[in-house]
Amino acid sequence: MSEVRNVLFIMCDQLRYDYLSCYGHPHLHTPHLDQLAARGTRFTNAYVQSPVCGPSRMSTYTGRYVLSHGSVYNGYPLRVGELTLGDHLRPLGIDTVLIGKTHMRADVEGMERYGIPPDSIIGARLSECGFDVFERDDGLHPDSGYVPDPAYNSYLRERGYDGANPWHSAANSVAAGEGESGSGWFLKYSNRPALIAEEDSETPYLTRRFMDFVDARQGKDGWLCHLSFIKPHWPYIVPAPYNTMYGPETWLPPVRDRAERETSHPVFAAFQNSRAARTFSRDDVRETVLPAYMGLIKQIDDQMGLLFAFLKARGLWDRTMIVFTSDHGDYMGDHWLGEKDMFHDPSVKVPLIIHDPRRGVIRGQVCDALVEAIDLAPTFVEVFGGVPARNRLEGRSLSPLLAGRMPDAWRTVAFSEYDYAWMSARQALGRDVDECKIIMARDTRWKLIFCEGFRPMLFDLETDPQELRDLGDDPRYSDVRFRLEAEIFAWARRQRQRITVSDEKVAASRESDAARAGIFIGFWDEAERDECLKDDPGPQNET
Amino acid sequence: MSEVRNVLFIMCDQLRYDYLSCYGHPHLHTPHLDQLAARGTRFTNAYVQSPVCGPSRMSTYTGRYVLSHGSVYNGYPLRVGELTLGDHLRPLGIDTVLIGKTHMRADVEGMERYGIPPDSIIGARLSECGFDVFERDDGLHPDSGYVPDPAYNSYLRERGYDGANPWHSAANSVAAGEGESGSGWFLKYSNRPALIAEEDSETPYLTRRFMDFVDARQGKDGWLCHLSFIKPHWPYIVPAPYNTMYGPETWLPPVRDRAERETSHPVFAAFQNSRAARTFSRDDVRETVLPAYMGLIKQIDDQMGLLFAFLKARGLWDRTMIVFTSDHGDYMGDHWLGEKDMFHDPSVKVPLIIHDPRRGVIRGQVCDALVEAIDLAPTFVEVFGGVPARNRLEGRSLSPLLAGRMPDAWRTVAFSEYDYAWMSARQALGRDVDECKIIMARDTRWKLIFCEGFRPMLFDLETDPQELRDLGDDPRYSDVRFRLEAEIFAWARRQRQRITVSDEKVAASRESDAARAGIFIGFWDEAERDECLKDDPGPQNET
Repeated sequence: MSEVRNVLFIMCDQLRYDYLSCYGHPHLHTPHLDQLAARGTRFTNAYVQSPVCGPSRMSTYTGRYVLSHGSVYNGYPLRVGELTLGDHLRPLGIDTVLIGKTHMRADVEGMERYGIPPDSIIGARLSECGFDVFERDDGLHPDSGYVPDPAYNSYLRERGYDGANPWHSAANSVAAGEGESGSGWFLKYSNRPALIAEEDSETPYLTRRFMDFVDARQGKDGWLCHLSFIKPHWPYIVPAPYNTMYGPETWLPPVRDRAERETSHPVFAAFQNSRAARTFSRDDVRETVLPAYMGLIKQIDDQMGLLFAFLKARGLWDRTMIVFTSDHGDYMGDHWLGEKDMFHDPSVKVPLIIHDPRRGVIRGQVCDALVEAIDLAPTFVEVFGGVPARNRLEGRSLSPLLAGRMPDAWRTVAFSEYDYAWMSARQALGRDVDECKIIMARDTRWKLIFCEGFRPMLFDLETDPQELRDLGDDPRYSDVRFRLEAEIFAWARRQRQRITVSDEKVAASRESDAARAGIFIGFWDEAERDECLKDDPGPQNET
Repeated sequence: MSEVRNVLFIMCDQLRYDYLSCYGHPHLHTPHLDQLAARGTRFTNAYVQSPVCGPSRMSTYTGRYVLSHGSVYNGYPLRVGELTLGDHLRPLGIDTVLIGKTHMRADVEGMERYGIPPDSIIGARLSECGFDVFERDDGLHPDSGYVPDPAYNSYLRERGYDGANPWHSAANSVAAGEGESGSGWFLKYSNRPALIAEEDSETPYLTRRFMDFVDARQGKDGWLCHLSFIKPHWPYIVPAPYNTMYGPETWLPPVRDRAERETSHPVFAAFQNSRAARTFSRDDVRETVLPAYMGLIKQIDDQMGLLFAFLKARGLWDRTMIVFTSDHGDYMGDHWLGEKDMFHDPSVKVPLIIHDPRRGVIRGQVCDALVEAIDLAPTFVEVFGGVPARNRLEGRSLSPLLAGRMPDAWRTVAFSEYDYAWMSARQALGRDVDECKIIMARDTRWKLIFCEGFRPMLFDLETDPQELRDLGDDPRYSDVRFRLEAEIFAWARRQRQRITVSDEKVAASRESDAARAGIFIGFWDEAERDECLKDDPGPQNET
């Protein structure tokens, strides 16, 4: 039977799960991704471990919850000592390569502490979240020089786009009249075309970079390539013709209810008061941004068509697993919120489509099991013939689900975390930096949002799938809240740092191991020792 | 006012809190330690973070709970990336030095992963839990060669004790008749004198090694020396005359109740069935071991007398903080248990005496505040003029308590953890390796023992200070159990891996920081940007 020789791990940034036609969008047609779903498995309950780029990605790349790796917000260096995809896959002989965004911030202080030169191979991988970098591009290149001049800028200059930072002046700006240009950061410009030819914009550029990577390998298998697109993330700007494809007849109304405005929940209220929330609660803003957001997604789907054709042309289709997902969603005005950051499905649920070329897997399968982004790392390890380390990887391989089998004791609750310590909500609520944790526990029917220092929020996804009625203070559901808080308690106390000794070694240990090493604890005399060593054989194990 | 220039951090191994006369033992007189207490502060509610050597020490040296550092049992390498005393004190110009035991196991795999040579300074410190080693000696040197020939063996051979391993054949063996020798590992020999002169035994040897260290510094201040004794830990063997000092009239009866034998608690029952528990439940064993255990403690106190006199003779007394404690206790047959491992006070409570030479501190103070071993690391940082990093150190400085002030919001609950996955109890109870966690939460009146998969145990320390009546299944105390389980929940979900960004940096962040970096999220137009940058000045902060 065929085997998986390579993995193409595609991630979009800020792509809502429900803005693809295979996920039910009535007007945004994404035939190429629909085709992928028709040939593979489409997961309808895939959750990221945090609804914001940095922590979500660190969880995906480490296979561990945010509470475990500690990179709780954008810009938090991932501590030296956390293992990433590369650490798990390289021992299996797999090249683990990055093209695009990771949002990784290097733990420079930790590397200094241990004398790891940033320009060494180890240092470079540590700095890039375990990946070997074919091209890193986080897609945020403001003129402040926040990020050094990226390779994409050099490409644009070669193509004749002048200026110190064509990423901004061309790819993410628009014409604002009288020869003026307007910055794509400002939402009022979102429905105008970017000042760049479509083929030179970020999504096609990164897609071609992947093709360059494949051709550079000259047919050599044994790679996982993380093709990590920047869009449809901010700035919401797309080149023609995509900016004019989606008019009013294609817009879905915002999912929101007046009652949410009068929420009694301080955290939800504070989030509704954030700048992006206030802005996206305005219909004029939403209706200016939607054409760009939908156009950016359509552009991605078109690029997927080219990419899949390329894989087939290169003969890679039948031995390459393709994973398509996102790091989080986008409220786009739903629930009176913008951006992401909270735990309603538009923000925390993501599309997840996996095409597994192996025979024996189900084609065109829809899987509604609760899966988490941390399940991908162990899936990759298993796909490449390894055994996921239970004491290090907190997710579970999806392979059985891809084959249509529901594994024993599959999770009944999915968890996600967010820390609003960096947001204005912290000051607004007068919280200390360690008191801003919110945790989602979502089972097959209910979604509880645990809020440090406040009552929880609760939604009944069966009777209220749009999550408009917060039952967090309804006495009729105290038992549901109690049960899900108990789930969070069990999740929080698990031993997630016990990473230096394998479960197998612990399981193989015997009390007689110490005695075998000559350490006799609790023995009255030599006779008891002889009896013990006779009765309890076992592998020698230091204690 | 005088300052602390040095810290002498003395730790005994397996010393019960109540086997010193200043802690109330009626027959075991320890005048030198009593003197230290009379000049300093004696803590009556000091708890270790795990009642077993390895994890207890890793918590003390990192200033973090076991759930945070992950070294859950003896022999668990401390993961690369965990900061230790040395990492916190060296930036303050303090030499952090070890003499004696740490029970540290190096994370060899992690060091390899990051290319850290074990013989480099960084590698050596990582391997030794952050200490610079003056002399490492864990005190367990069975003939199996479990540990390479220690310096102490060379010393003994110089002193004329022949043999491949005089640590065992001389310091920890006894005469067994007909020219035969008996191994000190076997309890039946415990009341016989070790085959070694008192001054050559381990406690005086390590005390002199500390004196060597001081003289080698030639008066240079700026050190923390961890003088870490091996005794009164196994093997329970002491040289003459100490082995004959404590007869039946000095023995305290075991603290135990028939009812404990019929406990309905599976974990407590399984622990009672361990080898050491079965052995120490026998009076003949207890009465053979007590003379050695008490003699070893008396020997330590005598050495403290010599050590304190030495510090005064060297003029160090008035500028050296002295901390005396233990890594855990010893059941010595109480509660039908031997060794440690469980959470009754004889096992998990330790003596803690701190002599602070600074003026303004209270002399002869008894402090009953709930303190934890993880409070020592931040205390040392503060004493040497540093500011404890709240995002890394989970304890709190004891300095205010030493000055007689109870800080605001001091902890109301002390926590300790144990993982019995390596013990026969795991097989006996049929638990998976990740299902063997037990957690103590002790407030000012109650002690709850949370047991993964079983009901908790509960003791009322006010009406039952000897912890003989388990109220864990008594319906009258369900509210107490609920409250303490809620405390464990709050403790378990704290963000203990958020170590790469300081609380101060988080607190200083403003939502406008991103805008200052040129990243405009949620802005409709340029006017909103200008307004934001005008209204909200703040330090620039990347997001």
